[in-house]
Amino acid sequence: MDGFPQDFEIFELGDVTLQHGATLRGAKLAYKTYGELNADRTNAIVYPTWYSGRHWDNEWLIGEGMALDPGKYFIIVPNMLGNGLSSSPSNTPPPYDRARFPKVTFYDQVEQQHRLVTERFGIETLALVTGWSMGAGQTWQWAVSHPEMVQRACPFCGSSKTSEHNIVFLEGVKAALTADAAFRGGWYDDDAWPTTGLRAVGRVYAGWGLSQAFYWNQVYREMGYSSLEDFLVGLWEGFFLDRRDPNNLLTMLWTWQNGNIGNTPGFDGDHVKALRSIKAKVIALPAEKDLYFPPEDEEYAVSHVADGELRVIPGVWGHFAGGGANPTDTAYIDGVLKDLLAS
Amino acid sequence: MDGFPQDFEIFELGDVTLQHGATLRGAKLAYKTYGELNADRTNAIVYPTWYSGRHWDNEWLIGEGMALDPGKYFIIVPNMLGNGLSSSPSNTPPPYDRARFPKVTFYDQVEQQHRLVTERFGIETLALVTGWSMGAGQTWQWAVSHPEMVQRACPFCGSSKTSEHNIVFLEGVKAALTADAAFRGGWYDDDAWPTTGLRAVGRVYAGWGLSQAFYWNQVYREMGYSSLEDFLVGLWEGFFLDRRDPNNLLTMLWTWQNGNIGNTPGFDGDHVKALRSIKAKVIALPAEKDLYFPPEDEEYAVSHVADGELRVIPGVWGHFAGGGANPTDTAYIDGVLKDLLAS
Repeated sequence: MDGFPQDFEIFELGDVTLQHGATLRGAKLAYKTYGELNADRTNAIVYPTWYSGRHWDNEWLIGEGMALDPGKYFIIVPNMLGNGLSSSPSNTPPPYDRARFPKVTFYDQVEQQHRLVTERFGIETLALVTGWSMGAGQTWQWAVSHPEMVQRACPFCGSSKTSEHNIVFLEGVKAALTADAAFRGGWYDDDAWPTTGLRAVGRVYAGWGLSQAFYWNQVYREMGYSSLEDFLVGLWEGFFLDRRDPNNLLTMLWTWQNGNIGNTPGFDGDHVKALRSIKAKVIALPAEKDLYFPPEDEEYAVSHVADGELRVIPGVWGHFAGGGANPTDTAYIDGVLKDLLAS
Repeated sequence: MDGFPQDFEIFELGDVTLQHGATLRGAKLAYKTYGELNADRTNAIVYPTWYSGRHWDNEWLIGEGMALDPGKYFIIVPNMLGNGLSSSPSNTPPPYDRARFPKVTFYDQVEQQHRLVTERFGIETLALVTGWSMGAGQTWQWAVSHPEMVQRACPFCGSSKTSEHNIVFLEGVKAALTADAAFRGGWYDDDAWPTTGLRAVGRVYAGWGLSQAFYWNQVYREMGYSSLEDFLVGLWEGFFLDRRDPNNLLTMLWTWQNGNIGNTPGFDGDHVKALRSIKAKVIALPAEKDLYFPPEDEEYAVSHVADGELRVIPGVWGHFAGGGANPTDTAYIDGVLKDLLAS
């Protein structure tokens, strides 16, 4: 179930004690960089991955002439713990393997990324942190965990505290996956994955990932799918069957459900206090019809950020406006990042 | 798995040939009436049930001083085929029992209700047809199948053609239920229901049934639930575990997914042509934040109805604005029905 590209580096984290108490011994952070770090180390950008995404899934937003131009910036894409490349249920030796992989918070994710950035590269300032979805959650976390370091932040289609509705959406995903008896409490064999549950996850996710108007307009036809069912099987079931290890999915899902920058040490659970501590210039960038990260939530969040601004990606693509699937939304996001980097 | 109240009548339908070709022999329509039919038989209202609802689940909108006042009107609540009281997978003898129960369309539902209304009661005109959700689908179908008979129609939180997004939402529900191996293709034992799948259905449904803002405001606390998880277990899992036979759920789900008044004989699949044929005064009444029957869809539909009007139930309750769960929305719906009946 592996066979991933090997175009990345590993940063050896050693023994990492996580926020919830477990120690992940010999932990690894997989990452890839684009461009060159300049002499005074001021051109670095961190761009974390999203739920089940890998570094190569972020590359659509990187390119010559784009905001994230490797000719100008040193772009670091760290893979989230749990995504199958960094330490994850699927690649950790016993006893913390598979269903026993520990709980990882957004705070934990960013602490390890901070070590990569400072220890390996000697970077003390970040021109920008940005990311989609759970990448946006990590972006918010960076701005709270390291306020002196993050100059600018653009979380797109995400949140600084996972809303209760979002938690419920993810409960549906989790319940569909684990309803398959082949899941076996996470102790499935590598040659007997709970594929019925993974396909069910795809079908549950499909309604949430895009908007009502996306389906009304049958935009999936523009993507090359020949019918609604073809879209459900070809894209959604295919997505989750493509080496998405179920325990990895549940590890990342736990991180997502428990997202809250208020749980950063020193803030005692106070989400608003954490927002107020941010020093970065922040443009929060939700998508107009995102069904689980609605613009209202980010409007609330930026209202508590000293140098915070809200912009909204227009259109029918819902959450996947931020996934790089269509050129219009990509251009919009790129334009916002250019504005932000120019400020 | 039975033990339902027996406060209803049965209309013997005999052998019913359904739109998709099966003949359901000895079919039965369970119904209940409220109030008295007047001498000239002009005060009848039909108020069909919704997805997994039974006649008693409609009673919140019936009462003295309300629009549906049994002191003034003769209100007939027919139970949908598939709901467990009328002919359903759970109560039909072999060979059309359980997983082999035939496909039933909205057209089929209304044809049988029409027989009840005309053959049993000799009614030739209906003052009103109204219903929530799939009840709204039946309301639209009544207005198309029997345009000369339906004076007024108020479909609330529903549609005349199931949108593709709605179909996808239901695919998630179906996939979660059938991911449980105990479902056994519909041939589960009566003492071994796929309860894991039913609980998963509850969790998938929970995100859709209410709005993002409902959860943001923790409105479930006003309903007596002590936490988010208490709401998920206490209401949602409990709902689907409460004698909701899985095959019945899938029968009704098929009806819902295939909803389209354009498939009424004579319209050749043309949804708009069917809308244009409606003679009733129609108030379509979606809820502001309904996630699967968004107001835009009903706005489109009424634009093709000669005497059509759109009103929108305001607030955060999403689809369940129409479920009778809160007095504000109930008063709003009742007010609209009063306006409509006075016209």
